[in-house]
Parts: sequence; structure tokens; C-alpha cells
Amino acid sequence: MNTVAIFGVGLIGGSFALALRKAGFSGRIIGVSSPETIRRALELSVIDEGMPAQNAAETADLIYLAQPILRIIEILPELDGWVRPDALVTDAGSTKSTIVERAGAISRCQFLGGHPMAGRERRGVEAAEADLFVGRPYVLTPSSDIELKSAQARDFIGWIEKIGAFTVILSAQEHDQIVAYTSHLPQLASTALAALLEGRSEPESGVFGPALVDSTRLALSSFDIWGDILATNRESIRVALRSYIAKLEEFSKGLESGPMQEHFRRAAKFASQLRDSS
Amino acid sequence: MNTVAIFGVGLIGGSFALALRKAGFSGRIIGVSSPETIRRALELSVIDEGMPAQNAAETADLIYLAQPILRIIEILPELDGWVRPDALVTDAGSTKSTIVERAGAISRCQFLGGHPMAGRERRGVEAAEADLFVGRPYVLTPSSDIELKSAQARDFIGWIEKIGAFTVILSAQEHDQIVAYTSHLPQLASTALAALLEGRSEPESGVFGPALVDSTRLALSSFDIWGDILATNRESIRVALRSYIAKLEEFSKGLESGPMQEHFRRAAKFASQLRDSS
Repeated sequence: MNTVAIFGVGLIGGSFALALRKAGFSGRIIGVSSPETIRRALELSVIDEGMPAQNAAETADLIYLAQPILRIIEILPELDGWVRPDALVTDAGSTKSTIVERAGAISRCQFLGGHPMAGRERRGVEAAEADLFVGRPYVLTPSSDIELKSAQARDFIGWIEKIGAFTVILSAQEHDQIVAYTSHLPQLASTALAALLEGRSEPESGVFGPALVDSTRLALSSFDIWGDILATNRESIRVALRSYIAKLEEFSKGLESGPMQEHFRRAAKFASQLRDSS
Repeated sequence: MNTVAIFGVGLIGGSFALALRKAGFSGRIIGVSSPETIRRALELSVIDEGMPAQNAAETADLIYLAQPILRIIEILPELDGWVRPDALVTDAGSTKSTIVERAGAISRCQFLGGHPMAGRERRGVEAAEADLFVGRPYVLTPSSDIELKSAQARDFIGWIEKIGAFTVILSAQEHDQIVAYTSHLPQLASTALAALLEGRSEPESGVFGPALVDSTRLALSSFDIWGDILATNRESIRVALRSYIAKLEEFSKGLESGPMQEHFRRAAKFASQLRDSS
């Protein structure tokens, strides 16, 4: 892997570039983004140069798609006309089934779907940081395990480890089902809470504790990102929402002390295990 | 106000003592708690002395009940045999209707219900801090506005302001309805999420982002506190849960882009207003 083209030099794409560099990657890092982002990415030494999509795709060994999901889906068929046969195309989209399905359009080189489970509140290249992936899972979603054995894939996986992440291998569908519960549901739970309070509660009265501020932090998330996630993982999200609603129905029916104590116990158990493992 | 007796020298009671002292209170601060807590509170100079409940109640001008809600309810009738006629009994319980109703048992001096909307994750006298109430609302729930006009009440309200809090006057029922939405619902939303994931999701797989850690923070809360809150605000909590469920049902039915964008917009609006006002 000598030349990497990062499509979408935002938080994830920019951090991947910085992380590669910090891990000792000495090849070329090309950015494909808006002129304004390329300018900032060059100023911040996140990339070595900017290029139009086609030139970058024709040049790179690794094509790293870190754009919004629908933009990734859009560009996949175009890429097939440009890529080198020995290149690897991968992506960092937060949902995988639709992307992996649409990546069938890539026949001239290998495609391997991925999802680094890392993030921050701030977005954009300015928020990029070399340590973003350290200690974090990096999900890969091959259609078959053979996809992990090619020279390109092994090289890429080597870099994932060098930047401090650990790989988790899942099918695209498994991934989407899990993140529906662990990422998309928490987002919607927070958005629902804040949307419910909007209009009916007056923040200026101040009658709320620090808990509400915490609980509505995710509600600040931009629909630019979430619109694409909801559109490409609708079924799994609906299943997760239905089981969350069922749990809340249980609460609402039996606010009695015995059952609620057990819910609190299980919830606290999960929350502490999560902290031990993160 | 020359002598204050703090019943329950934990996070809130201890912080109230430290805050009074920092604000220039030069009278005596008596603690009523377990021997172990009194020992720590004396070591940390949070109180001047420990006393049994009856002695403390017979001595103090201000009796500040900062125990768990059910313990407050239990001690109210006992207090009436001990208090001085010119004393003020107040409490810091997180629900108000039941406490204010039971405070009818106090006939020998004035009772005024309160709820400082402040807190931290850590509990106990070790976590007490003089600045806990700074910039935070301090709800008072008089049964009639006349209760705020007595010399004792005016003195107490003066100290609430001196410790940096601002008073918000609500009926006990209004208070309980509001906190059902702004405090109890966020808690149950987090507990439900964590309880749902417990058993079905394996934290050790690591397939979750920082959002899940945030969303399950409240789920760590102790049932010691929440059992009492749920038991004394069941109806309002049920109403809040039902409207949260209705909002989630709306989401689950229409994960289409148009309506979801509007939900995200309203949620983000509320979440930022909350931050501007906190």
C-alpha cells in the first residue's frame, strides 16, 4: 500500500489519514473533497495533495470512502470505471447492508466494507485526530472470509491494527442489526426525548437537572448524517425501536418496586460491563 | 437563623452545609446521620457536631431534611413533637406531592417543601461541595404563597440566594409533573435501554460507539434513590412514559426522511436551548 485516496476528508477520513501517518505510513495520501475542505486539509497537513475523484481512483492502492452513506452508494458504480485491478476499495459508512449490496457494482477490483466505531461530537477535518481509532473496534463486513485473505486486504488489516484499532468481522446484516441497538436506538431515544420536551417544557424555567442535559446530548446530532443512516437501516431500526417500546411498556405497567428494582439491577450491570470493556 | 440541623449528611445535605458556611453563615451546623457519616462529616469539617434526631430538632431554627424520600416521610410526624414553634422544617426530596401532603403532620411550626435541582454522579458526604447549588434552580413548593412571607421562610430564601441558587416557586403537583418529564423520564429511558441490551448485546464484542456509553450513564443510578422516587410519583411518571412511548411509536411508523428531519430539528432546537439556559 503506497498511495491512499481518501474520499471525504472529514472527521473519519481526516483521522484515518493522520492515524496512518502517525503509524509510520510513508506513502502518498490524496484527498478527494470540496475545494474548501482540501484547502483546510492541506493547511493542517492531513493530506499530501487534493485530486479530482477520477484521478485519485486511478492512482490509489487503497480507496477509502469516508463520505456520507448516500454519497458512497452513488459513487460506487462510477469508481468501477476508474480503479486499478490491484486496488482495494473500502468504506467507513455507519450502515453496511446497502453499501455492501451496491458494491456489487465494483467488479474490476476488490471491495471490503468497513465501519470504524469511533467518533466525536465535533465534525469536519478540523476535528480529525490521529488517535481517534485507538482501542476502538473496526468492523469489517466481508461477504465471505476469503475476502480477508487477499494481499490487499491483509495489508489494509495490518494498517487497521497499526493505527491502534482492533478488527471485528461480521456480516453486513449482523453489523446493521447490532448497531440498530447500540447506536441508532440510543440516538432515536435521545431525539424522541428532546422532541417530546420541545414545546411542552420550557428550558428557561430551569426545572431540570444535569441528567436532562446528558440525555439530550445526542439530540444535537445532525440530520445530514442520520437521514442516510435511517434510510439505509430502516428494518433493523424498526425492530430495535419495537423492543425498546416493549420494555418501556413493561415499565409503565409495573412501576412497582420489585420488578423495577430488577430492571435497575440489570441495567446497571450492563452499563458497568460496557464501561469495563470500553 | 442561628442553628441549622441537617438530617442526612450526604451529597445534598453536606453540600448545603458547606454552601452555607462559604456564604458566610456563622451559626451552628448540626448533623443527624449514621455514626459513620457523622465521623466523616466532622473530619471533613462539613458539620460542627453530630446529635440524635430529637436533640437536633429541639435545638435548630432550620431543620433541613436531606434523607431519602421515604425516610423523610417517616420522620415528619415524629418531628412535630420535638420542634420549636419558631423553627422552619424544609426538605430536599426529589418528589414533592407525597412529602408536602405528609408534612400536614407538622402543626407546631412551619413546613416548606423544597427541591434543589443539583446533583453529581458521586454520592455521600465525601462528594459534598460548597458550589453544588451555584446557578442551579431551587424549587420551593408552598401550599400557599403566604408560606413564603414568614420571617423564617424569608430568612431561608435569603440563604438559598446567598449560596448561589435561584428560587423557583411551584405547587408540589406542578413540580412532580415537570420532573416526571425532565428527570424521571430521562432516567427510565436510560434504564430501559440498558436493561434491553443486557443479555442481548455483548459489550465485550465492542461493537458500540461512545454514544452508548453516554446513553447508559444514568442507568448506573442506584435503586436506593429511584425506588423512593418511583413510589412517590407513579402517576406523573406513567403519563410521561406514555407520551414518550407515543413519540417512539411515531418514529417507528414513519422512519421516512421528511417527518424524521422535522423530529430531529425540533429535538436539536430543544437540546440547544437547554444548553443556553443551563
